[in-house]
Amino acid sequence: MNQTSLRIGLAGLGRLGRRYAEYLARAVPRARLDAVCSPVADEIDWARETLGTPRLYADYAAMLADTELDAVFLITPTSLHAEQIEQALDAGKHVFCEKPLSLDVPTCLRTVEHAKRYPHLRAMVGFVRHFDASYRAAKSRIEEGGIGRPFMVYSQTADKLDPSGAFVKFAPTSGGLFLDCSVHDIDLARWLLGRPAARRVYAIGTTAMYPELKPMGDVDNGVAVCEFSDGSMAMFHASRTQAHGHDTHTDIVGTAGKLSVGRNPRLDRVEIADAHGVRSLSLPSFFERFEDAFLAQCRHFVDAVLDGQPFDLTLDDAAEATRIATALRQSQQTGQPVDLG
Amino acid sequence: MNQTSLRIGLAGLGRLGRRYAEYLARAVPRARLDAVCSPVADEIDWARETLGTPRLYADYAAMLADTELDAVFLITPTSLHAEQIEQALDAGKHVFCEKPLSLDVPTCLRTVEHAKRYPHLRAMVGFVRHFDASYRAAKSRIEEGGIGRPFMVYSQTADKLDPSGAFVKFAPTSGGLFLDCSVHDIDLARWLLGRPAARRVYAIGTTAMYPELKPMGDVDNGVAVCEFSDGSMAMFHASRTQAHGHDTHTDIVGTAGKLSVGRNPRLDRVEIADAHGVRSLSLPSFFERFEDAFLAQCRHFVDAVLDGQPFDLTLDDAAEATRIATALRQSQQTGQPVDLG
Amino acid sequence: MNQTSLRIGLAGLGRLGRRYAEYLARAVPRARLDAVCSPVADEIDWARETLGTPRLYADYAAMLADTELDAVFLITPTSLHAEQIEQALDAGKHVFCEKPLSLDVPTCLRTVEHAKRYPHLRAMVGFVRHFDASYRAAKSRIEEGGIGRPFMVYSQTADKLDPSGAFVKFAPTSGGLFLDCSVHDIDLARWLLGRPAARRVYAIGTTAMYPELKPMGDVDNGVAVCEFSDGSMAMFHASRTQAHGHDTHTDIVGTAGKLSVGRNPRLDRVEIADAHGVRSLSLPSFFERFEDAFLAQCRHFVDAVLDGQPFDLTLDDAAEATRIATALRQSQQTGQPVDLG
Amino acid sequence: MNQTSLRIGLAGLGRLGRRYAEYLARAVPRARLDAVCSPVADEIDWARETLGTPRLYADYAAMLADTELDAVFLITPTSLHAEQIEQALDAGKHVFCEKPLSLDVPTCLRTVEHAKRYPHLRAMVGFVRHFDASYRAAKSRIEEGGIGRPFMVYSQTADKLDPSGAFVKFAPTSGGLFLDCSVHDIDLARWLLGRPAARRVYAIGTTAMYPELKPMGDVDNGVAVCEFSDGSMAMFHASRTQAHGHDTHTDIVGTAGKLSVGRNPRLDRVEIADAHGVRSLSLPSFFERFEDAFLAQCRHFVDAVLDGQPFDLTLDDAAEATRIATALRQSQQTGQPVDLG
Repeated sequence: MNQTSLRIGLAGLGRLGRRYAEYLARAVPRARLDAVCSPVADEIDWARETLGTPRLYADYAAMLADTELDAVFLITPTSLHAEQIEQALDAGKHVFCEKPLSLDVPTCLRTVEHAKRYPHLRAMVGFVRHFDASYRAAKSRIEEGGIGRPFMVYSQTADKLDPSGAFVKFAPTSGGLFLDCSVHDIDLARWLLGRPAARRVYAIGTTAMYPELKPMGDVDNGVAVCEFSDGSMAMFHASRTQAHGHDTHTDIVGTAGKLSVGRNPRLDRVEIADAHGVRSLSLPSFFERFEDAFLAQCRHFVDAVLDGQPFDLTLDDAAEATRIATALRQSQQTGQPVDLG
Repeated sequence: MNQTSLRIGLAGLGRLGRRYAEYLARAVPRARLDAVCSPVADEIDWARETLGTPRLYADYAAMLADTELDAVFLITPTSLHAEQIEQALDAGKHVFCEKPLSLDVPTCLRTVEHAKRYPHLRAMVGFVRHFDASYRAAKSRIEEGGIGRPFMVYSQTADKLDPSGAFVKFAPTSGGLFLDCSVHDIDLARWLLGRPAARRVYAIGTTAMYPELKPMGDVDNGVAVCEFSDGSMAMFHASRTQAHGHDTHTDIVGTAGKLSVGRNPRLDRVEIADAHGVRSLSLPSFFERFEDAFLAQCRHFVDAVLDGQPFDLTLDDAAEATRIATALRQSQQTGQPVDLG
Repeated sequence: MNQTSLRIGLAGLGRLGRRYAEYLARAVPRARLDAVCSPVADEIDWARETLGTPRLYADYAAMLADTELDAVFLITPTSLHAEQIEQALDAGKHVFCEKPLSLDVPTCLRTVEHAKRYPHLRAMVGFVRHFDASYRAAKSRIEEGGIGRPFMVYSQTADKLDPSGAFVKFAPTSGGLFLDCSVHDIDLARWLLGRPAARRVYAIGTTAMYPELKPMGDVDNGVAVCEFSDGSMAMFHASRTQAHGHDTHTDIVGTAGKLSVGRNPRLDRVEIADAHGVRSLSLPSFFERFEDAFLAQCRHFVDAVLDGQPFDLTLDDAAEATRIATALRQSQQTGQPVDLG
Repeated sequence: MNQTSLRIGLAGLGRLGRRYAEYLARAVPRARLDAVCSPVADEIDWARETLGTPRLYADYAAMLADTELDAVFLITPTSLHAEQIEQALDAGKHVFCEKPLSLDVPTCLRTVEHAKRYPHLRAMVGFVRHFDASYRAAKSRIEEGGIGRPFMVYSQTADKLDPSGAFVKFAPTSGGLFLDCSVHDIDLARWLLGRPAARRVYAIGTTAMYPELKPMGDVDNGVAVCEFSDGSMAMFHASRTQAHGHDTHTDIVGTAGKLSVGRNPRLDRVEIADAHGVRSLSLPSFFERFEDAFLAQCRHFVDAVLDGQPFDLTLDDAAEATRIATALRQSQQTGQPVDLG
């Protein structure tokens, strides 16, 4: 696009949506947050008062009809993602959508196909860890040959225990542990290993602290292995029950070295030596861990659209992450490996 | 036993056997190394000259006939372990044997049964990590409730790449990666989780650097998951190809905390800050990592026999480790989970 | 002030000045960068083109005459700071000035006195580490009693060796190692210890790699101790010659614990395990270390002025840091302790 | 000496003396602990019963008259060291003596002179850290040029707070903080820097928790700087009041890198992640830190004497450590630098 800034409308002003709105309004140099959309009046008020957003919509279709917008950001419920992406493309907008594309593989594939009709429009589903400085440094080091040929990934997404158990009520709509959490690790493993084709997965899980998940077929801790067709492998661990904090980390093993991203989830650069030993405090949640990456992701999208550069992530990546995560869930529920080849 | 010292005969004077012999001769207060046995004349000479061992046997049966010995230590080839244990018991000796009991499950079970005939004699297969100060500290912390209820273990045995590939020629007799390496992790997982019953395993592997292993059905890197009947889980990773050093570590996750034993395999307490960043050198092999534990293991055996105290490890533990490791190998070779219930 | 935003003119558009300008223009919510001032035409062009700054001045006096500005930011050469602060106050502007206030104690004291004439105007000299999240967390923990009574600080400012030796040519105007680097550590020690009165200092130094500093009385590595009148103590180390990176760290020891800020100057969350051991790369310079703090400092200034809240730092702090650093230099040059009481 | 083992008599069977006795009796291959000496009957009983030591003396002179002893180990009170070393030499024995040689410089020099009369006898004062694997690795790396030219040392000896304050009653005979603790750091600094000549020192101290030390002129925390005649420098910190554990560490900075020995005084290889963050427990005392080094020191002495190899440490080193530590104490008490040149 031959423009100096991208005119954006954002849909969804929940906790994460407001963060995106603030970034786009204030911290992404070439972005203009010209419109927001939410069915919740308080959220609309917040955007007007806090950000001074000029155009406010209660209805998504109305925002899509706004011809002064180049792109939309979708920070809406997962169940709406696929259709809203398609509608945005139909309305001639570029689209950024929070992960996941959909919890349902056929829907993912449908949206991938739909997007092919609009080769001049750009669509990306955000897997925020791609934009984290440490993951990017790891990826660069791999590409420079720093660890030889990578052939194995261990990746975990482990959330701090929320004693209120609030996540349990979202379990039915989150797709379960593997689709909600491991989908990030799957995406990272594919990226760091060079996008090999997944061949087969196997997963198991347990309800260490939330037996109420069992009737839904869900677990609060799960582990899985994934074989790729080039012989590389991945192990995944997802947890809702860490005592110390949000502990997301990834190891990438190659023939000449190993990289570990995020081991020891230090909150900051303070080390405490006292009666408890020598210690660092841990990150409370994914947001503190990836705050800078959320911003970098916005910049990447805006710059790539304006400059006609490729995205780091495609809709195919998003669909494949859902496909593999769905297979993990199926394996955990059936006790059998699932072939993906 | 109402004795002040245990009179020991040791069979097998290879690299590891000589280490055991030195410990028993010099560093285990209540042990007397009164005899050694080896078919190799040079090894016998070494024991006489270096340790001053009084009685020297070329033949195992002859040493067993030595009525002045209370116990034997077997640091012999794996294929001899089971039968030599049985013979030692038949000869009225207590037995310590290096791991594994056998690579073959029926043989393990036969020896377990055989030992039941001699309730007054003691037999232990050494899984050295039980006697490492850090693993013991972890076990104590768990028993004190320090991490709540443990429900997951991640354990890896990862050896430094030997560019000569010497291990490949031992592959046919080592039982392969899972029986040679993961057997330690399996034993640790069972111990740290409170010896739950294994229900089902699944394993995959790859030949990242040694394709010549393929025809033998072996791999140089493998990963596996194991479900236990109480809902707890384990992940295993074994590798022959680490660039930085011997990197054996174990995480134990509980409902109130996590312990990691051996993360970052520091060689010593030196930290180097130079053009490569801030770093520590890594342990070259399992021996530097577990040297103190080998000695502690000898002391544990000797003290427990003399004082009539229980061993930390039973023959059943050794048989179960082989049973699970064999199932991992089978799973890796067939691509299917293996039920153990 | 009863305003929604602070109208700022910034003087000095060198490397650091341009960073400040970008922050004020884009990333400080309640700031407006309405003017810049530089005698260098290219720098002025940069501000116009990159930031779209509306009013551009070649002359500082002209900018001060701009009645539409509430405050000025001085990112100018150290030798101009004191006088420019005084002129800004005379012109009715609030002032933020990069450290140090002056390399000369009487000048510092003169400016402190000058500022007292304008009680309605605010002036702050920026010691950026106050605004670093980790130093703030340490300060909070101390205030909450987390380490008991703090009584000792070790603080070092250690720069990566610049093989070009470029800093040598700035040595005559930088005030030397203690005034250029240790001034930060002095300021931190006072802050973290609760601003005790300095009683006596002693310093020594060496020219480990830059003998050309000797004729100027300067050194490339220096160490010092400082006694405070309440019995607390500080040790300082400053270096221009670190091999691994910028390694600024501070320990605060109290009667019930110790805090270390910045030990191991990790570049990011990546750990590399390869033939060099297990390592992290190090920060290249103070800027990567304190980038977020520079921004936070701008926000603090703007918010505190607009909301009538106290600054974290006063001109007195800046004068005292210069006074102590000057005494360190004197001690290093004379070989005698210097009394400050 | 053309012998296969060294026949040793040990004087002093306090806590540390008993440890030495156990090492010499059991764990030093070429040593024979043939005699012990103590005025305390219970200690003599312990040696007979626990170690089976054959010859038992209540009187030091009697032990020196034992012609079947080649060497004596002195683990006696500091005030006896110098004279007992001289007497041992007069009696024709080699001598190992625990540090320090004496708290008094003239006495140190007298013993150094005395020893010169017996060039065929060997005497060493044990500074145990020389024999620690990590310090030795650091020294080797320096000698190989791994950090370029070393020019600065930071070294601290920091003991865990003993709430009983038992050390206070030993303060009058320990020589105070600098002679009791910093003497190790002084010795290390000289060793690691290549034994440069000390030129001048300056020290300060405080009584953070034990004001009862003040009347004795002692402190519970002290810091010092030391200049050497080749331009190299050292900083020392000594403390009796650490909350977390025994935290002895040393940094050595060179023109091409830095080594840190002992940073983060980990008790073992266990890392705990729980509500306190991610942490390791700390070493409780110097003994756990240097247990292996005490043994290695015994072996070094025995091997060096038997093989006619040089000691790592000379009596001159011991005298110089006392001389510098005494100057630190003087500086702390007078507030003035002390010249040593």
